Amino acid sequence: MDLAKNPTVLVLNGPNLNMLGLRQPEIYGRESLKDIEKACAEKAKALGLALDFRQSNLEGELITWAQEARGTKAGIVINPAGYGHTSIALLDALLVTELPVIEVHLSNIHRREPFRHHTYTSQAATGVICGLGATGYLMALEAMANLIKTKKARA
Amino acid sequence: MDLAKNPTVLVLNGPNLNMLGLRQPEIYGRESLKDIEKACAEKAKALGLALDFRQSNLEGELITWAQEARGTKAGIVINPAGYGHTSIALLDALLVTELPVIEVHLSNIHRREPFRHHTYTSQAATGVICGLGATGYLMALEAMANLIKTKKARA
Amino acid sequence: MDLAKNPTVLVLNGPNLNMLGLRQPEIYGRESLKDIEKACAEKAKALGLALDFRQSNLEGELITWAQEARGTKAGIVINPAGYGHTSIALLDALLVTELPVIEVHLSNIHRREPFRHHTYTSQAATGVICGLGATGYLMALEAMANLIKTKKARA
Amino acid sequence: MDLAKNPTVLVLNGPNLNMLGLRQPEIYGRESLKDIEKACAEKAKALGLALDFRQSNLEGELITWAQEARGTKAGIVINPAGYGHTSIALLDALLVTELPVIEVHLSNIHRREPFRHHTYTSQAATGVICGLGATGYLMALEAMANLIKTKKARA
Amino acid sequence: MDLAKNPTVLVLNGPNLNMLGLRQPEIYGRESLKDIEKACAEKAKALGLALDFRQSNLEGELITWAQEARGTKAGIVINPAGYGHTSIALLDALLVTELPVIEVHLSNIHRREPFRHHTYTSQAATGVICGLGATGYLMALEAMANLIKTKKARA
Amino acid sequence: MDLAKNPTVLVLNGPNLNMLGLRQPEIYGRESLKDIEKACAEKAKALGLALDFRQSNLEGELITWAQEARGTKAGIVINPAGYGHTSIALLDALLVTELPVIEVHLSNIHRREPFRHHTYTSQAATGVICGLGATGYLMALEAMANLIKTKKARA
Amino acid sequence: MDLAKNPTVLVLNGPNLNMLGLRQPEIYGRESLKDIEKACAEKAKALGLALDFRQSNLEGELITWAQEARGTKAGIVINPAGYGHTSIALLDALLVTELPVIEVHLSNIHRREPFRHHTYTSQAATGVICGLGATGYLMALEAMANLIKTKKARA
Amino acid sequence: MDLAKNPTVLVLNGPNLNMLGLRQPEIYGRESLKDIEKACAEKAKALGLALDFRQSNLEGELITWAQEARGTKAGIVINPAGYGHTSIALLDALLVTELPVIEVHLSNIHRREPFRHHTYTSQAATGVICGLGATGYLMALEAMANLIKTKKARA
Amino acid sequence: MDLAKNPTVLVLNGPNLNMLGLRQPEIYGRESLKDIEKACAEKAKALGLALDFRQSNLEGELITWAQEARGTKAGIVINPAGYGHTSIALLDALLVTELPVIEVHLSNIHRREPFRHHTYTSQAATGVICGLGATGYLMALEAMANLIKTKKARA
Amino acid sequence: MDLAKNPTVLVLNGPNLNMLGLRQPEIYGRESLKDIEKACAEKAKALGLALDFRQSNLEGELITWAQEARGTKAGIVINPAGYGHTSIALLDALLVTELPVIEVHLSNIHRREPFRHHTYTSQAATGVICGLGATGYLMALEAMANLIKTKKARA
Amino acid sequence: MDLAKNPTVLVLNGPNLNMLGLRQPEIYGRESLKDIEKACAEKAKALGLALDFRQSNLEGELITWAQEARGTKAGIVINPAGYGHTSIALLDALLVTELPVIEVHLSNIHRREPFRHHTYTSQAATGVICGLGATGYLMALEAMANLIKTKKARA
Amino acid sequence: MDLAKNPTVLVLNGPNLNMLGLRQPEIYGRESLKDIEKACAEKAKALGLALDFRQSNLEGELITWAQEARGTKAGIVINPAGYGHTSIALLDALLVTELPVIEVHLSNIHRREPFRHHTYTSQAATGVICGLGATGYLMALEAMANLIKTKKARA
Repeated sequence: MDLAKNPTVLVLNGPNLNMLGLRQPEIYGRESLKDIEKACAEKAKALGLALDFRQSNLEGELITWAQEARGTKAGIVINPAGYGHTSIALLDALLVTELPVIEVHLSNIHRREPFRHHTYTSQAATGVICGLGATGYLMALEAMANLIKTKKARA
Repeated sequence: MDLAKNPTVLVLNGPNLNMLGLRQPEIYGRESLKDIEKACAEKAKALGLALDFRQSNLEGELITWAQEARGTKAGIVINPAGYGHTSIALLDALLVTELPVIEVHLSNIHRREPFRHHTYTSQAATGVICGLGATGYLMALEAMANLIKTKKARA
Repeated sequence: MDLAKNPTVLVLNGPNLNMLGLRQPEIYGRESLKDIEKACAEKAKALGLALDFRQSNLEGELITWAQEARGTKAGIVINPAGYGHTSIALLDALLVTELPVIEVHLSNIHRREPFRHHTYTSQAATGVICGLGATGYLMALEAMANLIKTKKARA
Repeated sequence: MDLAKNPTVLVLNGPNLNMLGLRQPEIYGRESLKDIEKACAEKAKALGLALDFRQSNLEGELITWAQEARGTKAGIVINPAGYGHTSIALLDALLVTELPVIEVHLSNIHRREPFRHHTYTSQAATGVICGLGATGYLMALEAMANLIKTKKARA
Repeated sequence: MDLAKNPTVLVLNGPNLNMLGLRQPEIYGRESLKDIEKACAEKAKALGLALDFRQSNLEGELITWAQEARGTKAGIVINPAGYGHTSIALLDALLVTELPVIEVHLSNIHRREPFRHHTYTSQAATGVICGLGATGYLMALEAMANLIKTKKARA
Repeated sequence: MDLAKNPTVLVLNGPNLNMLGLRQPEIYGRESLKDIEKACAEKAKALGLALDFRQSNLEGELITWAQEARGTKAGIVINPAGYGHTSIALLDALLVTELPVIEVHLSNIHRREPFRHHTYTSQAATGVICGLGATGYLMALEAMANLIKTKKARA
Repeated sequence: MDLAKNPTVLVLNGPNLNMLGLRQPEIYGRESLKDIEKACAEKAKALGLALDFRQSNLEGELITWAQEARGTKAGIVINPAGYGHTSIALLDALLVTELPVIEVHLSNIHRREPFRHHTYTSQAATGVICGLGATGYLMALEAMANLIKTKKARA
Repeated sequence: MDLAKNPTVLVLNGPNLNMLGLRQPEIYGRESLKDIEKACAEKAKALGLALDFRQSNLEGELITWAQEARGTKAGIVINPAGYGHTSIALLDALLVTELPVIEVHLSNIHRREPFRHHTYTSQAATGVICGLGATGYLMALEAMANLIKTKKARA
Repeated sequence: MDLAKNPTVLVLNGPNLNMLGLRQPEIYGRESLKDIEKACAEKAKALGLALDFRQSNLEGELITWAQEARGTKAGIVINPAGYGHTSIALLDALLVTELPVIEVHLSNIHRREPFRHHTYTSQAATGVICGLGATGYLMALEAMANLIKTKKARA
Repeated sequence: MDLAKNPTVLVLNGPNLNMLGLRQPEIYGRESLKDIEKACAEKAKALGLALDFRQSNLEGELITWAQEARGTKAGIVINPAGYGHTSIALLDALLVTELPVIEVHLSNIHRREPFRHHTYTSQAATGVICGLGATGYLMALEAMANLIKTKKARA
Repeated sequence: MDLAKNPTVLVLNGPNLNMLGLRQPEIYGRESLKDIEKACAEKAKALGLALDFRQSNLEGELITWAQEARGTKAGIVINPAGYGHTSIALLDALLVTELPVIEVHLSNIHRREPFRHHTYTSQAATGVICGLGATGYLMALEAMANLIKTKKARA
Repeated sequence: MDLAKNPTVLVLNGPNLNMLGLRQPEIYGRESLKDIEKACAEKAKALGLALDFRQSNLEGELITWAQEARGTKAGIVINPAGYGHTSIALLDALLVTELPVIEVHLSNIHRREPFRHHTYTSQAATGVICGLGATGYLMALEAMANLIKTKKARA
């Protein structure tokens, strides 16, 4: 991985995020995942980052993608959706990468059902942003750019 | 989706249900999933419903199938098996569909180990039928036919 | 008890079900208990069953009626209403009967307040049907007819 | 129910309250239930209310009395005694009435054994008064008079 | 109450004990409640006690009988059956009596389902005997005779 | 403190009560704290009580005011608002006073979020009134007048 | 072990019971363990039983004594005192013996601190007697005689 | 409040944040609160917002400041520090304002001691940002600018 | 399945085990999964067993592989990794096989985070080995050889 | 801070300790806080320590005083009273100081109500002394003198 | 016991304290139990107390030693070590003595694993000192001297 | 300790293991502890280890034996039996030794009663083997030989 120019950030999207804009827009907003990807692409470009934006409904595929980021990506932004609350395996995959991780949720999970308050994945994250909708992704990219810069400065 | 004639009901079967008839028959009965599908097909026909009957061991595949039902099927009957107790992602997929959902369990889950008493998926269901074996599927189809009829009547 | 022709099924209705149709119709529907009894009577007749349909607000009366079913009835369909969640004595009465029991709830109790999620009586039941409104009673009768038939076939 | 003059308030007293004055007077005071009824009668009269004051040790009878209040009484003051802590069925009966309800306890239940801290019935009540002895009943009547007045004013 | 000769002991039997001998004999034994009453009558006679032996499926009736024992009986032996685990109202009734109380269970409740391990009524009892079958009643009478004697000696 | 004429009652109001009438009027009503103070003043006068009515957002100030009431006031009516649920220090301050205390809540705290169901301060109170809006203050004053009278009668 | 004449019953007494009569007599009574042993000896004789009565403060010694009873004694009466609440090892020792076991407590453990409500040893006992003081031992011997007799009758 | 030009955002800082830079820099970073205020001021200016940046160790002062924001500020960014985990009163103050609220934590509270995982204040927040250090404040301001803009657009 | 010569043992490896040697070597050791497979192959050969060694990040694939072992393999050694703690579906798949199962963990899960202490899969296992690193696999194979031998001897 | 001669120890007293001697003397003793301060002053002098003895009912003031001790005092003895059980902010303030802390309670908090058993502040303390009344303060000063000496010896 | 001159204090040391100085010196310090005994002997002499200093790994021996102190010693200082957290029998032995008891722990048990936070023995203690190392013993002796003096003064 | 040739491994057996082969053979197998010792002796010899194999019913004796292993043995294999679940003191003794520890259970403790699922002693163990019967001991010796070898290699 050549971090010297345009380090790549992997943006992982968990189950059902492919349905964004359709499902409960009062909770998740009206933007589709395509819209968010586009906004992320612009933001990444502005930040000098390359973007690898993916979604899967398969826990195991998300795990594999995270594993593959080890040594090839500079950081991971993850919206784990439903798997964040239940997947120790996904947490372990994030730990395997030894990369900076930022967790994003579209809604404020602390104001929803109790089973949505806790995420295992937050144990692997530097920071967590929730409740700011699609903007949360852009902020996560911004924060990730800072983390990568700091890391490079230290190396 | 043309609900006017033969609306389709998706019957989703979760992990290990492909092994029915082999596993612990004193709990799950001796009928295979094939037998249940056949009985469902007959029942559906009698009720004027088309049937889409599937099984998967993959949580993510079940999620994708549920998502695809949005706007194309008239309702979902789901036996989530082991994933019902642990999958918030599957619950979210059912909510995404905005379809009527009926949950079925072959055994009376309330008389088994405590970790089988609760299902997340029941939060998306109109009704739950458990402990009535394969008959539970047929009743679920019947109830689904009613729900679809009522919905059409209202529309 | 002569099971050879028209075995009798006892349908027990717990507290406040005499007020059906008045109370929270968005939860319990608009049918009165009288309506449900009538529908059950027709269904029973169609199934070759005699029907004994009762309601009481008194826990002890429900217990006594269940006890009396031992050796005189062929099965019990019970909507225990509020007593289902709190009455170990009613559970014991159902166990005393050594009859097949099917539990019915008009609403999906798993989507209501946490104190309505669990019933003691389900420990004595072959199956549980909830959330399907008055139809649940009819399905319970159908399932009961099957259970009685199977039992006779074995005897 | 003609609320225009002297609307009736049902005062329901739960189990063991017929023994008031005898049992643990340091907790419940030395007044008998007769004394309280008399004081309530005077208070009701002063407030322009008719009074229907009852006590039962039978959970089911309390439920039935509550049900009968629907459409015939203007409000319910209830001291559920021991059933308040355990009876979901009594809660449901109060909800069925769709009447204003005020719950009264002679003692401050929050300073007694933990199993007396919580009442199901408070879920159906506008307000709860505890620890003020027999005076609590009189205040409940007063508050009920206000609630009825407000309701009439709105109607 | 003239305790000088043949003080009366009230033996209260809770729900479903009228079915003894029929229900799960491997747990409760094969003796009927009639058999136990007869054995108690003999024992009471031998101990110089009068016996008042009752059973009810109605929680409220058990409460009323307990209340009536205040000042007229010398002690209460109670097998609360299912109500022991759930009835705070029955506990309160026993406390109202200010009489010595001994609680009996036919089976060893501590080796059964967790919801049978705890009884509210034990909070009002001098002693508890469980798991000794019908013999437990006779021992309770014996212990009660001692308690009454001691009390008289003190008075 | 001369209790012979016009003993003073301290009415303590906790955090955010200075915003009454603005905040969530569907829960707390539309009266301002000024309105309540005025009504309390009239009531106190009618009861022969002097009134000291205060509000603070500072836990420590409420504690100090309570402490100062020791030996100078005849009783405390407290609406602890948010501090009631979390402040052991405020409970201790009330205990220090050795005065009669009555706790008031405008809303029925038992029907709101679980973290509002319990108050530490109720451990120091003779009685608790909740859900009756501003009227609850007036009743608390009335009850306080009784408590003071009784205490004087005993002294 | 020759059970034909005078089968031996081991009476095991746990920690601190050697101090009986001194410690909290309002809870444990004024009889010393010597007194109880003497009463047990008389009772045993009357029942045709030999008695082996022991006390130890050492958990391991109680375990060894229980183990030695296997095949040499006819039953065990145990007052496990403090070890009953905490010793799984003592429970296992009782299970090893495959003998009938009756557990005795001088006080009603259910009315004391919560940590005294549960005993592991009750999982190995046929029955439990508590709260009847020294009399509890005598009743346990009586019940044990019955158990031995029944067992012999069956053999 | 004239939102037309430069709406003011109140930035509230809770206890011990005045010591930033000194305390556990490995957790909280090396920037002082002064540094953060300066960065916020620049950011606010860039966003066309006025800034009111405050810190207090007094829970009650934070509550009063929040209250005063009602009708005078356009939004609140709050780092509640230790009070976030324990103060229902602070939550209520935020609710009183009826303003958009964003909660910020310098560290990822979900990876610290369990008592730091939950905040009451998040119940009043649109979004929560944690673990991104001082940058989190800037992002919160950015998000707040969006919320204010959206609100104005709707109005 | 011909168990007469070289019965096959399926070794299932759960999520992230494909990354062994990279991730937290102080916890999981420095051997890669390839190294472990090689060591297992040698051990299996020495024990007269055939080896089928697999890894998947997909819960559903692990389930399918387990199902396929029914009737074709002689036993299953499973390191369920993260899915062991969360997958009831995987437990069910192991039960379906009706094969002997031995569970292995590289680290001592009881000394790690509480959410790693419990595994559902242990409910289907004859034995569990944890904390012995790669050696644990070899021991599991050895133990499996014994179980298969015993089973054959019995058949 | 010149530790060479007479290092200063800050003694912080939490809410209600200003009322010592008045409140529940059977729990807290009859000495006033003035008495304790005087005894502390003498003890400090004997130990070669300067004393800064303070009390506040305001959580925030205690926090500020603790913060100010950083770099100016040599150690903190704190009796947090009610705030010890509820204040994470006070714990954080103690941690900010990076000073040795000793916590004192007049009463044995482990024998009081369960909500008094745990203190957050103990997480910042080297040692805790409870139940020894005013003497506990003197011992804390003595222990603090040792800690300061050891620290200086190391420096 | 002649308390007139040199009353004896029993210092009981629980399991593993004989290994002091070897085990985890960063937690328990480097002094051996011999060192502590010597320091205690000097302190006791200075306080006019005789010293009986013991250690045992046997719970039952500690119990017996405590029992023997009844009537022969003037007080008990106990470091129960591991048994403090698990032994109700040791608590009972301390209660039997009816002597003043002070509990000591070398480390601050509240900052260690949760299972070390609670001790049963503290229920029998006047005071508890933890985290002050060997000095804690000396302070306990000092406090004990005060308690004995006060007791004599009262007698 | 001369580890150069034949380092000694201490095998500690907890309570009731002296009864092996008699007790519940379906759980613990039919081999006696003598049989296991003999098998261990052979295994140890083959591994070049000396064996010190002991059993005690006394918790304190097990603790002392563990302590004595410090500096004289090369490792400890322990089957703590019942004490594993309840003894913090035994855990501490194992920690004192600073030796490698391997914990063995004959049965799979995770499939038995909940109170057998957790052991304190596992906190001091490198690894845990359960459910493999007597073979588990031999594997533990093998693993111990590895641990000792590795340690020597490092030294």
